Formats: sequence, structure tokens, C-alpha cells
Amino acid sequence: MLGGCDAVELTKTYGTPLYVMDEQKVRDAMRAYRSSMEKYYGGNGLICYASKAFACKEMYRIANEEGLGVDVVSGGELYTALSVGFPAEKIGFHGNNKLPAEIRMALENDVGRIIVDGLGELELVDRIAGDLGVTANIILRITPGVDAHTHDFIRTGQIDSKFGLALETGAAMEGVKAALKAKNICLKGLDCHIGSQIMDVEPFVHTGEIMMQFILDIKNETGVEMEELDLGGGFGIRYVGSDDPVPYDSYMEAVSEGIKAFADKHGLKTPFIFMEPGRSIVGEAGTTLYTVGAIKEIPGVRTYVSIDGGMSDNPRYALYQAKYDFLLAEKADAPADSIVTVAGKCCESGDLLGEHVKMPMPKTGDILAVLSTGAYNYSMASNYNRNPIPPVVMVRDGASRVIVKGQTYEDMARFDV
Amino acid sequence: MLGGCDAVELTKTYGTPLYVMDEQKVRDAMRAYRSSMEKYYGGNGLICYASKAFACKEMYRIANEEGLGVDVVSGGELYTALSVGFPAEKIGFHGNNKLPAEIRMALENDVGRIIVDGLGELELVDRIAGDLGVTANIILRITPGVDAHTHDFIRTGQIDSKFGLALETGAAMEGVKAALKAKNICLKGLDCHIGSQIMDVEPFVHTGEIMMQFILDIKNETGVEMEELDLGGGFGIRYVGSDDPVPYDSYMEAVSEGIKAFADKHGLKTPFIFMEPGRSIVGEAGTTLYTVGAIKEIPGVRTYVSIDGGMSDNPRYALYQAKYDFLLAEKADAPADSIVTVAGKCCESGDLLGEHVKMPMPKTGDILAVLSTGAYNYSMASNYNRNPIPPVVMVRDGASRVIVKGQTYEDMARFDV
Repeated sequence: MLGGCDAVELTKTYGTPLYVMDEQKVRDAMRAYRSSMEKYYGGNGLICYASKAFACKEMYRIANEEGLGVDVVSGGELYTALSVGFPAEKIGFHGNNKLPAEIRMALENDVGRIIVDGLGELELVDRIAGDLGVTANIILRITPGVDAHTHDFIRTGQIDSKFGLALETGAAMEGVKAALKAKNICLKGLDCHIGSQIMDVEPFVHTGEIMMQFILDIKNETGVEMEELDLGGGFGIRYVGSDDPVPYDSYMEAVSEGIKAFADKHGLKTPFIFMEPGRSIVGEAGTTLYTVGAIKEIPGVRTYVSIDGGMSDNPRYALYQAKYDFLLAEKADAPADSIVTVAGKCCESGDLLGEHVKMPMPKTGDILAVLSTGAYNYSMASNYNRNPIPPVVMVRDGASRVIVKGQTYEDMARFDV
Repeated sequence: MLGGCDAVELTKTYGTPLYVMDEQKVRDAMRAYRSSMEKYYGGNGLICYASKAFACKEMYRIANEEGLGVDVVSGGELYTALSVGFPAEKIGFHGNNKLPAEIRMALENDVGRIIVDGLGELELVDRIAGDLGVTANIILRITPGVDAHTHDFIRTGQIDSKFGLALETGAAMEGVKAALKAKNICLKGLDCHIGSQIMDVEPFVHTGEIMMQFILDIKNETGVEMEELDLGGGFGIRYVGSDDPVPYDSYMEAVSEGIKAFADKHGLKTPFIFMEPGRSIVGEAGTTLYTVGAIKEIPGVRTYVSIDGGMSDNPRYALYQAKYDFLLAEKADAPADSIVTVAGKCCESGDLLGEHVKMPMPKTGDILAVLSTGAYNYSMASNYNRNPIPPVVMVRDGASRVIVKGQTYEDMARFDV
């Protein structure tokens, strides 16, 4: 059952592969973040949904209905958000290499904050803002030097990063001074992001203190006190049963206390804070449903169970050897007494969704559910092998509706001349 | 210069990122394969372009003009090939998990060969052919047990593979017998594929002999002599200067001699052979042009050079740590005296195109060319971060034309409800 809908019935209606999003889970996660912000930080902040995890029009509508801001990382995401009337002032524009056209688009549409990633970009934003005769409200991305011990690919807080200005090299302070001097820039605060899928509170608390120390250093050195602090995202989710994510409240409580204590001790105002959860809002709300096709038992080697999708709709195993839980929709209660490899249909040996997967032995035609696929699945999907990207269906209270239409063969060939 | 066109001029006309394909190189590669087949095997075979490497309407047109067959691996590729009138009898349909709807589509359109991947699929093809009242011409995919020592992800000849029926377990012989018995199946021959990006002749020769031995075994055991032998693809290309691919002629000569010698010795007919080059036809013909954006020098750590594309248009570094050669279009002759990391614009630390890349120090605005991107770049591209997929331009004799249109923001959001 997904959002009160029977998974097998959903596949009869919409076919497979099928991305299913549980609307209540999405809204509950958004509300949990907001209420934590109220409870532990007096509501003096904004939760911004990091939409790269799963961007589509309906997600921007829901974020807006729930009173969240959003982060965008490209002109394409910004376009989508604006196309459904998302309030521009609650949009933050991130990215290590925003294009001049994207910066212009953001400024022309009065985007709330541009999170400036480096000195070159600072000059670029200043120049384009000058051309347009506007002042750009920016936040400066800082690399705090925190290593949050996650997968190399999704670890971003350490000094060796394509993102941000490093504290320890002096680049961060240099950036702040340049921003304060720039004619068409209003520096509102600082941003950081230490990584993804982090299962500990401590790195966030530590980062909050580092950033507060930097706010103090800036005040001492320039006399200006930063008003805003963007603490990024990176909160872990449960991909498999053994993952043990920390409740939002625990993050928020510990981080808030750390920031408030530092502010009190050093005579700083408590800054307005942004938090940017992405994966933790949509990840566990998503399930992908596939139909089992070919089953290949190689005696003494392994059993390949092929499904009707693969790395074209979920490249995370190929990219990161990401682990998922798998369930057979009609055999959810049967003993998981087989060990199989779940393979995709792409013509590539690396197209697997999981190895050493325990499940009841499936048969051709069974519906296989892959759990916690709400983040970085649809958003990373491709037409590799000219497989169409599946539709996304939103479920809630036993009702379902398409929020992203599936592609046809014509859709995939429509750009071909 | 690409196909007689100045790279920088191309970017002025079409923008960046831009995929550029050199038409003459594509046609030359196709002709080289065909002439090798003529020269060493008396033309008793068909070169089939493995279109998953780069599928679009124009590639199917060119393959047809050059007298090649094509391989497809999905309904989407088949649709595209048929949409430009590619002769169905020269199409081979591959894949480890063809969907019932895809098999039906192939049979309804009289596709030349279905390369059947396993026993379950054999039954499925037989049943659907029966429903349609047709006979399915099939080739059976065999796993010959050859380990061609390439990257794990693209190694497919060993017994532990999601593809094919293993020789050594007896599954292959079982499949042959089942196919010979099946009512709506005409078994034309055998197929194998030992991997990708293979830089040696020997694995191919060895595989040819294994397959001929199996043809002999089948004849001895069933009295039926297989007429066709599909030797797959996997011929290596030059990605970086140190790669040393074998000329097509050398493959063809050695493999032909091996097969003919075996046939002579054992009183077999020399089979009609298929060869399935994909990467080696389009790989080196492709170049991707980017504009350099943010440059971030982290003293004592490394220098990040960000470009206006990334893993959304070329995920091969993120997937396989694939190596490429990089050139600055306007500084092709300058000394490569800097070592940089080429980073994409996606909001993800793993979005890199190369590390430890030697080049002249670029500046913002320079055009950066990534070489040998003709295969598995456009075909694997995604809208990750809602970055639009760039256009593909074909160049030849100083002229250029768009063969795949670039996407707009509207295009990316058009499936959103």
C-alpha cells in the first residue's frame, strides 16, 4: 500500500516502471522541519526545499502551500518554479558555476538570494546587477573545512571542493570584504553545506559553531554583522533498514542551541537561518514499481532478476553503489529466502539496481518495489538506450494522480532532425 | 578545427555546451569496417552499427547510406530507426530483458533478427510470434566465458553476466535445442559479446574459435549447422593519447583467419558473420565544446576549472572514472603547463569530467574541447539539475548542421502537470 493505494492496482492503471510519491509523507516532512524551526529557533528562519532532489511543477506548488522556500541550481529549475508562481523572494539560487544568462534571469526575476560561490562569480553578479540597475541580495558560500565522512562524491564541506570559499585559506574573508565593497551587491549572510546523507548531529553543530565564529571574525574585522546564516542540507534518510537517521528535531534542537549559546556568549544577534533539506523531504516518500522480466539463474554464480527499468530511471547504484530495500508487492510477507542481483534492462553489465538482495524468489510478471527512491531518481533519469522516462504518480488517501507524464517514443525522438 | 569548421565559430553559432560530430570520421569508420569485411571475409557478413552508442535519426540514415545494418536495444531505438525508413531486415534487436511490447513491435515490423538472451525470452518470443502468426528469426546470445580484462561495468563475456546463456553450464546447448524445437522460431545462429573498449586482437580470435567449436558441437549433437555467427562489438578506441587501439583490419584479418581455419579443419561452412561496432564508429568522431566559467584555485590543493555542462551531458567520469583528453580551442599549441580538475556545473561534488588534467591555464570564457565524446555522451545525457541537453551538430567539409536540437527550459518542464 502506498498512500492508501494498492501498488499492484497502480501498476495496472499507469504501467511500469512507475515512480510513486506519497504526498502525505512529503508534506509531513516539510511540516516537521517547519515545526522544528518554530519550536527550537522561534521561527527565525526559513526551510528551503532543495529542489534538485526532485524538481517538477507540483513539488514547487506543494513547497509553496507548505510555506517553504526553495533552492534552485539552474535556470531550468528556476524556470519551473516561476512557471507555477512560486514567490521569487523565497528562492535561493545555488551552484558552483552559474552561467551569466542564469544570473541575469535570477536578477530580472527578483530571486530572493543568490548564493555566490566564489570571487569570480561575485564580480559577475555585481556586473550584471549593475547592467540591470538593481542590487543583488547575496549570500556567500563558505567551505567550513568539515569532513562529514560520507561518500566522496557527496562530501562537500572539506577544503578540496569545487564549491565555496575556504575559511582556512583566507579566501572566505577575502570574499566577504569584496562583497561588502561591491557596488551592486548587498551581502546578507553566509552559506555552507557539509555533505549529503549525514547520519550524525555533531557535524552540523560543529559547522554551526564554525560559521558563528566566522560571523564574529567578520564583525571584528569589518564592523559588519552578518544577518543570515544558511546551514545547508545533508540530513540522512533511511535507504535500507539498517540506516539510522536522526529525527529532524534533534538536528534543529542541537544546532539552535549551539548557535544561540555562541551568539549570547559573544554579543551577536542570533542570525536568521536557512536550512535546505532535499533528500530528507522526498527520499523516503518515493517508491519505484517495476515488473520482473527475465530471471537468469547461473548455478553456483548468482541469479539475475531483470526489471523493466534500470540505470536510465535510477542511476544511483551505477554511480554510487547506493543500497536500496526491495519488496515484491504481492509477496511482502513471504520469507526473504533468496539472494538475487536486480538488473536493469539497459544493454550494459553495470546496469544493476542491487546485488546480494534478499527477497522471496520472484517470478516473471511480479511487481518489484524499490523503496526510498523519491530523491535523485526522476531528477537523474535519462533516455539511455532510448528507454522512456517513466511517469510520476502522486498518491494520497487512496487517490492517485499523474504529476509528471511518462514519455512516449515520439517524445524521445522529437529533438532529432 | 572540426570537420573543416572552426570550433570557436561553431560555439558562436550554436552556443555551448555543444556536441560536435565529424561526419566524415563516422562514414570513414563505417567504410573501414565494410572494406575489412570484404577484404578478409569475402563480404560474407554484415556490419551492424550498435546504435546505443549514439542513437538519433540522422545516425540511422547514415548507417543506411553506408550499407550497414544496425543493432537496437529498445523499442525507442527501434522506433527511431524505423521512423527514417531504416530497412527492418537489417536490424538486430538486443537486450537482456526485452519487454513483451518490444518483442511484439519487433515482430510486427519484421525486424531481421531478434537476439534472444535466455530461455524465458525464447518462450516469450515463441508465444508472441505464435499470437501474430509469424516465424521469428532469432539468434541466440551465448556467454562464451571470455574475460576481456576491461572495466567491470563493461565486461560481459564472463559467465557471471546478466546477458546470454553460458556455454560451460550447459545452458547454451539447452537453449539451442529449445530454439530448434520451438514452433514459431527459426534459429539462424549464435551471438556473443565479450566486453567493451578492448585493445587486443587475441580475445576476439579466441572467442571466434570458442563459438566455432560450439557450432561444431551443435552440429554433432543435433545435426543442425548454424548459418550465422554474431561476434558482437567491443573494439577499443583512443580516448586519450596513451590508448593504443588495434586497426579494424587487424581484428578482421585475425578473426577471419581463425574462423576459416576452424571451418576448413572440421568440415563446417564458414558462417555469415555479424560484427557490431558502436563506440568505435562514433567515439572519436565526437567532440564536446564547453565554455570555461568559474576558476577556483585552492592553494596547495588544486585548481577547479568549471565548465557550463558536466555529468548531465557526460556522466562517464562519474560512472567509470573515464579518461578524456582536453584542449583549449584557442590555445591548442600553448604549453600544457598547468594541472587542473575540470568540474561540471551540477550541484554535486562528483560532477567532474577529469582530474589531474594537463592544459594551459584557462581563463573564464575560453572554449574547452573534450575529445572522443561521440559515444555514450549524448545517449546517456540527462536533465539532472534541470540542465537542458545540448544540441548535436554534424560537421563536414567546413559546413555544419544541427542533427539533434538542443532543449529549452520549456522542453524540460513539458511533462510536468
